[in-house]
Amino acid sequence: MSKGIIVQKYGGTSVADIGRIQNVAKKVVAAKRAGFDVVVIVSALGHSTDKLIELAHQITVIPSERELDMLISTGEQVSCALLAMAIHKLGEDAISFTGAQVGIITDTSFTKARIIDINAKRIVEELKKKIVIVAGFQGVSVNQDITTLGRGGSNLTAVALAKVLNAESCEMYTDVEGVFTADPRVVKDARKIDRLSYEEMFELASLGTQVLQPRSIEFAMKFGVPIHVRSSFSNKIGTIISREVKAMEHIVVSGVALNKDEAKVTICDVPDRPGIAAKIFKVIAKENINVDMIVQNVSRTHATDISFTVPGTDLHKTIKVAKELSRRVGAGDITFDKDIAKVSIVGIGMRSHSGVAAIMFEALAEKRINIEMISTSEIKISCVVNKKYGEKAVRVIHEKFGLGKKKVKK
Amino acid sequence: MSKGIIVQKYGGTSVADIGRIQNVAKKVVAAKRAGFDVVVIVSALGHSTDKLIELAHQITVIPSERELDMLISTGEQVSCALLAMAIHKLGEDAISFTGAQVGIITDTSFTKARIIDINAKRIVEELKKKIVIVAGFQGVSVNQDITTLGRGGSNLTAVALAKVLNAESCEMYTDVEGVFTADPRVVKDARKIDRLSYEEMFELASLGTQVLQPRSIEFAMKFGVPIHVRSSFSNKIGTIISREVKAMEHIVVSGVALNKDEAKVTICDVPDRPGIAAKIFKVIAKENINVDMIVQNVSRTHATDISFTVPGTDLHKTIKVAKELSRRVGAGDITFDKDIAKVSIVGIGMRSHSGVAAIMFEALAEKRINIEMISTSEIKISCVVNKKYGEKAVRVIHEKFGLGKKKVKK
Repeated sequence: MSKGIIVQKYGGTSVADIGRIQNVAKKVVAAKRAGFDVVVIVSALGHSTDKLIELAHQITVIPSERELDMLISTGEQVSCALLAMAIHKLGEDAISFTGAQVGIITDTSFTKARIIDINAKRIVEELKKKIVIVAGFQGVSVNQDITTLGRGGSNLTAVALAKVLNAESCEMYTDVEGVFTADPRVVKDARKIDRLSYEEMFELASLGTQVLQPRSIEFAMKFGVPIHVRSSFSNKIGTIISREVKAMEHIVVSGVALNKDEAKVTICDVPDRPGIAAKIFKVIAKENINVDMIVQNVSRTHATDISFTVPGTDLHKTIKVAKELSRRVGAGDITFDKDIAKVSIVGIGMRSHSGVAAIMFEALAEKRINIEMISTSEIKISCVVNKKYGEKAVRVIHEKFGLGKKKVKK
Repeated sequence: MSKGIIVQKYGGTSVADIGRIQNVAKKVVAAKRAGFDVVVIVSALGHSTDKLIELAHQITVIPSERELDMLISTGEQVSCALLAMAIHKLGEDAISFTGAQVGIITDTSFTKARIIDINAKRIVEELKKKIVIVAGFQGVSVNQDITTLGRGGSNLTAVALAKVLNAESCEMYTDVEGVFTADPRVVKDARKIDRLSYEEMFELASLGTQVLQPRSIEFAMKFGVPIHVRSSFSNKIGTIISREVKAMEHIVVSGVALNKDEAKVTICDVPDRPGIAAKIFKVIAKENINVDMIVQNVSRTHATDISFTVPGTDLHKTIKVAKELSRRVGAGDITFDKDIAKVSIVGIGMRSHSGVAAIMFEALAEKRINIEMISTSEIKISCVVNKKYGEKAVRVIHEKFGLGKKKVKK
């Protein structure tokens, strides 16, 4: 009797070479022998996708997106065939499939396609006898063209299949043991978090935690698929990400995140007229610049300063656009600062607890770290500080909320 | 107005790196701009298939054939996507397809599947506007499993598509300028052959000419598809292989071939009873040993010697089987010789010309080259000689038949 279906997803670092593929095979076989029907989603071997893209770029700087998907989808096809062989070697039956073969139907937005339907008939049939391996990150259009799902696409494949197959669990294997209260390289006593809500994980992901992409969390949240983030190099329980449960409400702050990849831009003396801000950010969005925090200072003498942060890589483009904009709306100088760090705390309990922001600001003040910008959401507070104080800020906040030793209770 | 459809097939050496893919793109675009609708079949980049097989062998010595096909079919998918990009770069529209996408339906004999049907609807449709590129060597079973067609499979794909599309021409691009009267590395004045019959090419291919595999010639012959073997590094006309035409009958000998990869085995004193030879070769075939020439000497005193040649790599296995067989049928010693070379002449005109064998034997006798075995078919005569005389034998025969300077006429 089967104990139900488990979906396991292994990322590129988990299948970087033959030895690691054999290690993954052992984990898959263990789950099968523990009585589960196992569906495995794999990414491409290590950096093989980058190598394929590099080949394309030797031909043209802007390859056709359809042909790029045709090219890079081979990476996952290779790793899933090799994993099937490694499982056979351990004495279990396994069969691998491309996205097209298991009916992962997408739209035709090549390189960033959206799944529109899954016909899991073949998987369900094979799962009665075999371990089923599915190439992550890819699908097929109704016209039979191969598509890929964009960054973190293998996670989307895993979540979507877990939903369709009504799986007991969706395990995301990675090279860390789960989601931590802070980056363990920055904060020595950072602690693995046992449970997180989708919303918290979503904020942590947006803030630069590399474990799961915001898009796959959104997808899991939409379908209510619980995710177990864990390490492919150990057997320890990792972090469970699910709908908010009662116990979570008591945890005010779940983690502290750091992002050093942004830059701050200020448009000075913007005329204080209705609709000006909308006009500015519409133009910036049109240039495909992803604005994160926006702060508008109190108006004085009919003019105001508007500051915002953008990815550091977009800084030059942003300055150019901002200068042009400033001329057009009759604003003043453009100033910018590349040396910033964004420190954020995230926690679902924050919603019903006042004074959390004050504690954070106090922690920074005690160490004389100046706050340049502040932005808050329901479950997140972010402060921009000088880049050189970024790590120090994370450590003092992590300590102030007592995250390293025990959870902060009401 | 289209001048009709041209099928072009480029082998692994023609697409070994990005530079060569760009070279292929130029040739394809030239054909398109000359007014043809072009369908291109490509093999995998250089040695990429070998590299994938090596990965599989790091996991297991006997990989599942289904999974092996899943793995190695990615090679052609990569090269056809890259070729599409290179054609785009030259300003022409192109679209690439896997075997599955263009409906190349095969049986389920993984790693050596046979094409059972082609649904070329998508190709015909796309060909109205675009250059169509198809991954060679692969197909798909009715159950949607990916299959490969075995050695020389891309040639099969090309011939099959040329037939289905009723193409004007099926061009096989390779790294030599066509089929030669002898290996140009052995015979300095070897001449490129302008026209060959399928039968001649079939014999030459079996004898070790690497240009086309016997299976793809058989396929082309069956469907009456004329093949043009030519170089991807020049614009010269190569060798046209087609049904026998009148002009061919005048050519007695088309080419001289050399095979140094065989070994000779003799079972001595085999009892001269009916059915003994059948018994011997049935057992050898069962061991998957591919026997080429068989010679039985004249019977004396109710016993006979049976000699045969096998691939050198199968020699040890063959000796073991032969010893066991000899005991069982009451024959004598087993002798063997690794130092042999097989020299063969092939020509469709031989059928109606007597004395051809005599000329060949005379040529060898003049140079005091001893003949160890002789075997003949309707359009081929093969002699086994000592390996060290192999090249010399090819040269004297090539000269005797005047192949270098002009064709031998009746």
